[in-house]
Amino acid sequence: MISAEQLIATQLRAHEYLQNTGIILTPEEIARIEVADFGLGDLGVHGLQLITYINTSRVCAKELVLFPRQTCPEHRHPEIEGEPGKEETFRCRSGVVYLYVEGAATSDPQGRPPAGAASEYTVAHEIVLGPGEQYTIMPDTKHWFQAGDEGAVVSEFSTRSRDEFDIFTDDCIKRVTVVE
Amino acid sequence: MISAEQLIATQLRAHEYLQNTGIILTPEEIARIEVADFGLGDLGVHGLQLITYINTSRVCAKELVLFPRQTCPEHRHPEIEGEPGKEETFRCRSGVVYLYVEGAATSDPQGRPPAGAASEYTVAHEIVLGPGEQYTIMPDTKHWFQAGDEGAVVSEFSTRSRDEFDIFTDDCIKRVTVVE
Repeated sequence: MISAEQLIATQLRAHEYLQNTGIILTPEEIARIEVADFGLGDLGVHGLQLITYINTSRVCAKELVLFPRQTCPEHRHPEIEGEPGKEETFRCRSGVVYLYVEGAATSDPQGRPPAGAASEYTVAHEIVLGPGEQYTIMPDTKHWFQAGDEGAVVSEFSTRSRDEFDIFTDDCIKRVTVVE
Repeated sequence: MISAEQLIATQLRAHEYLQNTGIILTPEEIARIEVADFGLGDLGVHGLQLITYINTSRVCAKELVLFPRQTCPEHRHPEIEGEPGKEETFRCRSGVVYLYVEGAATSDPQGRPPAGAASEYTVAHEIVLGPGEQYTIMPDTKHWFQAGDEGAVVSEFSTRSRDEFDIFTDDCIKRVTVVE
């Protein structure tokens, strides 16, 4: 749960990151930047800011903003009603993002699961994305990601997004943020 | 047909437009910027520069660069082998783009078909996109677009792209550019 004041302050902070990356939003878009606290109540640790440009039955495009060391918790996009899960490409636009996917664990990774939550992070194959670098995550693949010390802006190009069906490793997570 | 020298010079010019918009490409991407002359041999008039980030069976994302008043000729994306045609969203990132789609003709439009080619342009409903503005073109809908006097950078978010199946109103057009 976040307060209405926290929502607005976080939207404005996310918009600054976008502006600093040269990405222009309309006033209507700034006001609908989504702030996800994942129901964990500590937005600076587990959180993500998103603006969705388009989301039809076939295509979705978003910008993701992460503040320094902010983490999007581990999840996957399952098949829904016979339709393959979401396929998504992350393209880093500014900052650095540490992405973790299924595969051999990376020794000495640059990102770390948030303190006290290590048991909710099971994949540890590290992909480091700097500006202009990208990675495609196939459907139903566990992944999580964390910004570096400067935060990050990441474009996401994907099939239809139905975030409410995402399956998080931490079953305490609520994907839809409650605003007081 | 364009020369190898023209290809490289045009790639570098397109890259400058992207850089000025804050969009970062890898060296590998700069070298594979696609230059489309549509087989019409006058790139400054009919032409488009593209970098494709991802193009799978489900999702495609590109950046399009148009030089001042450069025009992408009228075309549509048909159904292919039972799969609905390409659905695409154009989001203007810098400059201005004049987009023409099916519907009531706009009186006093801000773009014009290239001189001598008016018969190959049949749709005239104008959509003007400045930075941060976007428009979604549904499958099999005729459209063409022209940059304003400063050129334009446009992000395209779409379903799978199979440009070789595009149907152009001008049947002299060859979508795949021949480099000498």
